[in-house]
Formats: sequence, C-alpha cells, structure tokens
Amino acid sequence: MRNALYFQSGGVTAVIGATAAALIAAHRQASAGRLFAAEHGLSGLINGQLVDASALPEPMRLALSNLPGGGLGSGRTLLSPYDKNPEQWAQVRDVLIRYQIGTLYVNGGNGSMDTAAKLVELSDRFALGLKVIGLPKTIDNDLEGTDTSPGFGSALKYLSVSLMEAARDHCAMAIKPSVFIMEVMGRHTGWLATCGAVARLPEAIDSPLILLPEALFDPDHFVATVRDRASRSNAIVCVVSEGIRTADGRFYAQQNVAQTYGHEQLGGAGFAIAELLRAQLGFKVHVAIPDYMQRAARHLASATDIAQAEAVARHAVVLAQSGQTGLMVNIVRESDSPYHWHCGDIALKEIANKERRLPDGWIDRQNYTLRANALAYLQPLIAGEISLPWSAGLPEYPWVEWPAV
Amino acid sequence: MRNALYFQSGGVTAVIGATAAALIAAHRQASAGRLFAAEHGLSGLINGQLVDASALPEPMRLALSNLPGGGLGSGRTLLSPYDKNPEQWAQVRDVLIRYQIGTLYVNGGNGSMDTAAKLVELSDRFALGLKVIGLPKTIDNDLEGTDTSPGFGSALKYLSVSLMEAARDHCAMAIKPSVFIMEVMGRHTGWLATCGAVARLPEAIDSPLILLPEALFDPDHFVATVRDRASRSNAIVCVVSEGIRTADGRFYAQQNVAQTYGHEQLGGAGFAIAELLRAQLGFKVHVAIPDYMQRAARHLASATDIAQAEAVARHAVVLAQSGQTGLMVNIVRESDSPYHWHCGDIALKEIANKERRLPDGWIDRQNYTLRANALAYLQPLIAGEISLPWSAGLPEYPWVEWPAV
Repeated sequence: MRNALYFQSGGVTAVIGATAAALIAAHRQASAGRLFAAEHGLSGLINGQLVDASALPEPMRLALSNLPGGGLGSGRTLLSPYDKNPEQWAQVRDVLIRYQIGTLYVNGGNGSMDTAAKLVELSDRFALGLKVIGLPKTIDNDLEGTDTSPGFGSALKYLSVSLMEAARDHCAMAIKPSVFIMEVMGRHTGWLATCGAVARLPEAIDSPLILLPEALFDPDHFVATVRDRASRSNAIVCVVSEGIRTADGRFYAQQNVAQTYGHEQLGGAGFAIAELLRAQLGFKVHVAIPDYMQRAARHLASATDIAQAEAVARHAVVLAQSGQTGLMVNIVRESDSPYHWHCGDIALKEIANKERRLPDGWIDRQNYTLRANALAYLQPLIAGEISLPWSAGLPEYPWVEWPAV
Repeated sequence: MRNALYFQSGGVTAVIGATAAALIAAHRQASAGRLFAAEHGLSGLINGQLVDASALPEPMRLALSNLPGGGLGSGRTLLSPYDKNPEQWAQVRDVLIRYQIGTLYVNGGNGSMDTAAKLVELSDRFALGLKVIGLPKTIDNDLEGTDTSPGFGSALKYLSVSLMEAARDHCAMAIKPSVFIMEVMGRHTGWLATCGAVARLPEAIDSPLILLPEALFDPDHFVATVRDRASRSNAIVCVVSEGIRTADGRFYAQQNVAQTYGHEQLGGAGFAIAELLRAQLGFKVHVAIPDYMQRAARHLASATDIAQAEAVARHAVVLAQSGQTGLMVNIVRESDSPYHWHCGDIALKEIANKERRLPDGWIDRQNYTLRANALAYLQPLIAGEISLPWSAGLPEYPWVEWPAV
C-alpha cells in the first residue's frame, strides 16, 4: 500500500490550516493509505520530521481548520537542481521510499511549485512512480495560472477593514494636514496594497494614495501630490507596499535609510515615506505596519477564501486518485457578479517560479490609485464573514498535537 | 430653556461612537432641551463649530454607535488656567451663552478631565450655572478614579487576539531563533502591553516578553534573557510599549536611534529593540506596529467595553438631570468573577491630570512578565463578541451627516 505526504512551503496564511484539515478529510474519505505530513516544509521531509496526519483525531482536525499559521510548520527550503545537489535528491528519495510515499501534496507559492515540478523529475530519475500535486497558497496572490490563491482574500479583507477603521480614527483627529500610512506586504507585487481601493471610505475622505512595486516611486511627484491633497483635506491616507522602488531599481526603504543613516535595516518603506513627508512638508505622520498580523488574522478571514482553501485540497485528492501528476490545482473564475468559480488544474512547469504582477491596465500611476476594473476582480474575494469558537473573550486556537508516524 | 453641549477630547477609540450615540438617546429621553456637539473638541467649541446632535436621525444614530473614531472629531486643545489665557475663557463663555448651554458633557481622558474641572471654575467665574459632567474615555486606561475607561477593553481584546494569531504564524516559520515584536501604544503606562499576558498561547509557546514603561529597560539584561529563551525555543514573542525608558529616564526609541543615527524620529521602540537584537544576537526579527488600528478596531470590540461606553453616557444624563456638577462618571467593579460593575461618580478635581500606572505588584520585572493577579482584573474587560452590519465583505461605516445647529 502506498501512502501520501503533505508539506507546506513558504510563508503561512490565515487559512492554510483550512487546506490541511480539508486534505486530511478528503484523503481519509478516499481510503488511500496513510497521509503523512512533514513539519517545516521540505527540510522536515529531508530530516524525517514526519507526523501521521491521517491519524489526527477529528476534534483536533476541526480546530486545525480554524488555526492561523496552520499548526504544522512551513519552511523556505527548496529543492535544488539535481546537478547542484544530488545529495539532497538522494535524501528526499530515501525518505519517500522508507515511508512508501506514492503521492506528494505540496502546498505553497511560486517557488514551492518549482520544487513540486522538480519532485516530478526526482520521481522520474529514481523511478518512484510518484504523483505530485501542487496546492496553491500565498497571501501575495502572485501565483500564475490560478485566478487567485488561498490566503490572499483573507489578508485583503483584513487590510481593507483595518484601513477603513484606521482612516476613521485619523479623520477624527486631523485638524491640520496629517498623513496615515499603512505599510503592507508585497516585495515584488502590489496585490495587498489594493486594499487602498477595496476599503469603502466615505466620499468625504479622499481615496487612499496607493504606492505599488509595479509603479516606480518618484519622491518629488509624490510629495507634490500629498501637498495638493492637503490643500483640500486634512486627513490623508496612504497605503505603501514594502517593495516600492525608485527609477534606479532599488527598494526605496533601503535606499532612503542608507542615504540618511548609512544603514539598511531600520524601518521599512512606511517609515521612509514618513521621513520624506516630515522633511519636505512638515506634516504629522502616523505609520502602521501590520506585518504578520495581515496574514494571520483568522478572526477576520474571508468566507470565500476559506471555501477555496478547502476546495483546492479536495480537488488535489481527486487529481491524485485519478492518477494524475505534475499539476497544480487552480481556481477558475466563471463570472465576477454573481461570483462563480470552480477548481481546475494547470501543469506545474507552466507556472513554477513565475510571478504575476498587477495588470498594467488597473494602475493609474499619475493619481496613485486603481481603476474601477480592479474592483470587479477583487471584491468577490473578500466576501463573507465567518464565525469562530470563542471563550473568555478570545478565539480558541489550541496547539495541534500531531500523532507520531 | 437650557441646552446641553457634548465634546470629545484626546485620542479617539473604537467605542467612542457608542458613548455619543447613547448620550443622544438618553438626552432625548430626558427631554432636556437640545444637545449640541462641538466638532474637534474644545477648539470646535471655541470656534463655534457646533452641530445639533439631538436632531440626528435614528438610523444615523445607530450607525454612529458602531463607528470607530466616533464620527464627530476629537481634539487636543485644553482649557488653560484663567490667568494664562483669559481671552480663551471669554470665547468659551460667549459660545456657551449664545447657545444657552446649561450642561456640558466632556468625553475624554485625564487631561480632558482637567479641562472639565476648569469649566466648572469658568461657570463659577462668569456665574453661568453650568452643570459639567465628565465621561471617561481612553484606550490607555490611565484615568484615576474609575475601574476602567471605555476604549481600553476593546483595544486590549484586539491586541490580545492579534498577538495570538501573529504568534502562531511566527511559530510556523521559526526554524531558527527569531523574534516577533509587537509595539503597542502607551507612552507612560503599560496597560495595553498587558495583552502579552492576556493572549492565550499554548504551553508549547513561551509566554511573551513584556516591556513596560513602568519597568526601566536594561538592554543588557534583556539581550541575555532573549539569548536564554532562544536556547529553549526558536519562536520568541515580545510586546513593547512605545514609551519604554532606560535608567537615565529617556525614551529608548529616541535614545537608540539618536545614538546610532543622530536623529530622533525614524522608527519607534519596536524597531529600536529589533536593532538591538539583530546587532547583539544576529536573530531575525519581525516588527508589527498596529498604531491607529489598535484603537479603531471596532470589528473586534469587546461587548463588555461597549456596554460600559453606553452606560457612562446614560449615567452622565442622570447626574446632570439631578442637578450635579463637577463629577466624572466612573465604573465601579463589584466582583471579578462573575464580573459585576455599575456606574458611579467621582469629583473631577480628584482625578484631573493624574495618571494611573500598572500596580507594582503585578509586574515581574526580572522575567518580563505579569503576575497572575493582573489577569483577574484584565480578563473581564475583553469578554463578549459583537456583531456589525456587513455588506459586500466590509462593515458598514457610513459618514455621519450631522444636522446643523
């Protein structure tokens, strides 16, 4: 009898536990042997840090479904090309053989899908007959070949709601020109910064200025824009992607701090922008950096996102059971409004290591905003509220005791 | 017929709208003339920026009750001593007479309660016969003379939940020693940093290190503690009050940045701690700064806090109607568990400008943690979840159109 192995790879999300829990349930239902899971990604697989996910008691599986961060441990180790590291390939092979693994489920983003594609090569090279299926997961939404990736919708909902709330606070206090900056994740793409357009602010509040990695950052033009905004309204709101760059291609966060202080790591893009505005305009500036909070806020997860996080797991088992390999489950959009979607698949090789950026036609660079067509895509992804078990004022996020192999 | 005037003063909260909405309802029920409100605090009163709160349509009053930031506008202008600024007193007097104000409701923290006390003096000096009632409000929880202040419980709940979620994310990713830092508000008191003790983390995660303004910060002792933690666990969580100070009495945020870069405003305490740990231990450090988000997160408000925010407004009207003046409504705790409380009152003069710090007996300075007796006080304040009206994935936070005077 052949077993299956699941691992998570890359940054975790608020709903990755929902994917893991749904995979366990679907795998059980398929009666397809045991389902092992590696802790901390590929490095856990290599080191033999495996647990028996299929033996997880049902109450704990349900708790796992609600758990931000996923309760298993992810990792950033990737599979090298064979020529570069044949020892690594041999280690992986040995573990797969030892545990009689016939199916591999790789839950990750674009780097992880490259590892999944290499695991197909590994199977061929060592004649293991593996079925390798990728499950999408990234708050960055930068995976090619899928309409969206589980994790993104919840992060976007959290950031949009947070921006709506913080903007109302900022408005209440702004009796002279002042700026509230929210720095969001996204080193190469501005998907999460779209919260500045998704957030529903009253007309009395100017729409947020959105700074994207896809639009080169020109400090002079930006300062002039903020000065102009301040002539109309005291409360200015700005969303900054951590990865904004200037025309020379360098990250603004590093560049500004390096120029001023000869040092690169203190603060990020948000504080660099704050320094710029204080120095050039003398405005009061507040900076919020949600950091891990934006990808862990399970209490404000999107019901749509959770439904998709679970669906990709169920579809992965269907693909493996029908003998397929070398595929990533994807989400296919049928219509924007009403929003209809289903799960399909795409070859790992077509998407591995590619990076999906915001469509150019969405971006109004001159005005630091997004065009209306962006919203037709984004709004369905944040739809629906969820409930969690609460006790004594806090959500129940237990520790997952994974059964030993 | 004499009217009443309400204004907000100091930083706003997630539940200050609930106080305003409850005051409007209670004032209407008392049939006590019109209730005006000044925009942006005392400065709005002085400038005659008044609205007719008692004419607010009921659906908008209900929406106001859910609105973070309060929808009216607060301000930081305080009433000076008469000798220092007799013109300011004359301006206030003129507005009060023009609008036939007989009752003043001042909704704020300890600085604002000093202004409320001075408004009693102003009434005496100009023989206005004012009734002046203070309504407590501060996320900092540093008001004396009340068991807690509306705004604090919700901010504490939000930070505690956020820390639980971010800690689970951090745990999932920590395959070598790394630190997650959450910087919370509190320049002089550590009430919000108590989220590090309130957050319910599994035993497998070491309890968060809590850095308080009430405990002088010793960098060497802290680095040694983190090094010791790292020998047991990879995932280290730390909550830092923005206002931590070293033995020389200076803010650590300013001091560290000034020493390194000759500049004071870039980054805050969280980034200063991050720099310290990177430099001394070489650890990876992530920093979250919720900033305004922590006092605006109405979506995660404490039901207990909202009940108290409304109760103080109703009690303020009762006090005014019974002819009292010079009092602040307070919250009196009857028991911890089950948690029972009621509204009472205390003389403004007894509490104005005082600052309540964390009880010394709660603080375990050696271990950067709080003792168990802190939790008996804190836990009831975050109890209870609320529901909001949502549409298309976002809460409904409309713009309040205040009726003109």
